Formats: sequence, structure tokens, C-alpha cells
Amino acid sequence: MTVKEIVFTVQTAHELDIKDITPQVSQAVSKSGIRDGMVLVFVPGSTGAITTLEYEPGLLEDIPRALERLFPKGLRYEHHERWQDGNGHSHVRAAFIGPSLTVPLSNGRLTLGTWQQIVLCDMDVPARERKIIVKIMGE
Amino acid sequence: MTVKEIVFTVQTAHELDIKDITPQVSQAVSKSGIRDGMVLVFVPGSTGAITTLEYEPGLLEDIPRALERLFPKGLRYEHHERWQDGNGHSHVRAAFIGPSLTVPLSNGRLTLGTWQQIVLCDMDVPARERKIIVKIMGE
Amino acid sequence: MTVKEIVFTVQTAHELDIKDITPQVSQAVSKSGIRDGMVLVFVPGSTGAITTLEYEPGLLEDIPRALERLFPKGLRYEHHERWQDGNGHSHVRAAFIGPSLTVPLSNGRLTLGTWQQIVLCDMDVPARERKIIVKIMGE
Repeated sequence: MTVKEIVFTVQTAHELDIKDITPQVSQAVSKSGIRDGMVLVFVPGSTGAITTLEYEPGLLEDIPRALERLFPKGLRYEHHERWQDGNGHSHVRAAFIGPSLTVPLSNGRLTLGTWQQIVLCDMDVPARERKIIVKIMGE
Repeated sequence: MTVKEIVFTVQTAHELDIKDITPQVSQAVSKSGIRDGMVLVFVPGSTGAITTLEYEPGLLEDIPRALERLFPKGLRYEHHERWQDGNGHSHVRAAFIGPSLTVPLSNGRLTLGTWQQIVLCDMDVPARERKIIVKIMGE
Repeated sequence: MTVKEIVFTVQTAHELDIKDITPQVSQAVSKSGIRDGMVLVFVPGSTGAITTLEYEPGLLEDIPRALERLFPKGLRYEHHERWQDGNGHSHVRAAFIGPSLTVPLSNGRLTLGTWQQIVLCDMDVPARERKIIVKIMGE
């Protein structure tokens, strides 16, 4: 049993630029040499979120639309009233989805479905360079 | 320290047929012989989700109702426009809840509350046979 | 490789009294002696949730407001119709956020962002004393 960590960065271009990070996570797994265990994917920061998605152009419109419907940017946010940083909605959205995902690792492979990708859903307003931490534990 | 994996399947009867999978997860834990560690429950596929719930008939109506209120089936989804598969809402719902849950294992038991069960919340439209992966790590 | 568990309690004062539990989780990590691995934070019970947040007064108003907007207390909940306990909305809210969070542990520290705290979001109506389970696995 051992534990390995691989860190990589992702550059977003704009608000809600959802990124498929499955290739980087898979590469981290290969590099680790661990074949059986758990893979934790985590984004530090309170306006980033990690989940899974069928990564195709339709959903890349549907997810931002749902976020805007549930947590409209135009509402009054006390976070913004205090800090004037214009991203109260980003914080609330990220807290609902969460920054952490754990995926089983079996025979050297993530046990994702065929049309299931690991995505970074960056809720912040400006383009960001995000650090992603992959922690792999097993044997 | 060791890692064990048990896979089982669950058959749903219809859309949003929420299934209590605690018995199968507990049995997997017993079978593993591991008594102290972490239990990861994961559903492969981008229209399934795992969370916890007090598994009683009232909430089995309240949860589908909340999902329909927040992500109505009748809205336009670009996923559906592209693929004509009628489940754009299923994908969006599943991405918000997530496919992964990790529960502590202490003295051979999941540390769930008394009225807290692990549930598969299948968001897809047709009845499905779902594979659930349980990964147990510890000693 | 080893596994350690630390349990602590948190007292809430009222519904949606969101508590920063990062100090207690960090102390648990220090006490464990584990420096590299995964830290699982779990709340037993079906009306509690764990996520991360920038813990500042603005968001402590914005998050409850979003929960009330998405899952209004005044709606009809079948859970309440059956049990008359007035917390159908609490159960639904908790199931959406989830009771579990896993954070990487690197060089003895949680890899949280600078303005990212681990919070207990207690959805139940009365003040509660909540047990939080921290499971640390690694080396």
C-alpha cells in the first residue's frame, strides 16, 4: 500500500469554461504505478468545483444555464456587498457542487462509465489558472 | 492495510426510482474483512448519482419533486437537441448530485446515522441495470 | 500506511447555523501523525451536510438564502405529511449537498485554498449537537 500525489494546472478562458481533466488524471494514475485503490481529485479554492459529466457540447451549455437559473448572477449577494468582487454567485454555486471527487481505481484504470468524464467546473468570473491535486492511494 | 473491491448491480423500474443500497454495501464491507478505513461507493455513468437519505416513502416523493422543480424535464436542453435521447435533464441532475460517496468504516461498521441510508438516485429516463462499485480500504 | 479516526462534536444554535470546522479537522490531522494521504470528513445523520466555503459573514447569509430559494420551507413535503416533524425541506437540502468530503493531505497539511474552509451545514430545524467523524489514511 502506498500513496502518491500528482499536481497539475488547468487554464480557463472565461466564466464557466468547463474543462475535461480526465486525460490528466488518467496520466497521473499511470505515472503513480498504483493499480488498485482510490483516486481523489481536488480543486483548492472556494469558487472551483469537480464533478463528472458526459463531456459533449450540449451539456457545456446546459450546465451553465442551470447554474444561472438556480443561482442568478444578477441577484443581491451579501458576499459581493462586503467585498465588491462580483463573484457571490460563484461561491454559492461552488459550495453546492463541491471541490472533491473520489473515483475507484481497478486494474490500473479509473472505473468511469464510457461517456463519463471528470470535469473542473470553474465558477469564478475571470479566467483562472487552477491547480488540481490528484491523490492516489492503493497498491 | 489492504484494499478490496466488490461490484453489484441494481435494477431500477422507472425514472427516479431511488434505491436503498445500504444492505449491499454493508454486505460488501463484511465480506471484505476490513474493519477500519474508508468505503467508497461509486456509480459509473453520467446519469446516476449516489447520496444519503432517510429512506422512507415521503422523501421518495419529495426528492423527485425537487429535481423536477430545479431541472424541469420540459425545458430545452442542448444535450437533447444534439442527440435526441430525451435525457438532457438527467445528465444535469446527476452532475449536481455526483456519482461518488465515501463513508468512514469503524469497528466493522459504516458510521451512518440511524435514519441515514446510502441511495442510488438514477436520473435516467428508462429502467436501467446499474453497476455499483464498492471500494474498501483499511485494515 | 495507517488509518486513524478522530471524532468531535459541534453545537449549532439554530437552523442553518453554518459552522467552520477546519480548526478541529486540522487538529485531528496533527494528532494523527499522518502526513501524506486522504482526510475524510463525515457527518452522520440525514439532515447534515459537509462542503467547503469561504467562511465570511456575507456567504453565511447567501447560502441559507439560496437553500430557501431552491427548497422553500413553506412547500408541501410528503416527509412532513407522514411524520409531522417539520423538516422535510432539511432532508431534501442535505441530500443535495451530501454528508461527506475528502481532502488531500500533503506534508502534514490539508490542501485547502487560502480562503477555503470546511463547513458543517446543518439543515435541521432545531439546534443540534452534531458528531463529526474524521478518518485519516496515509503514511
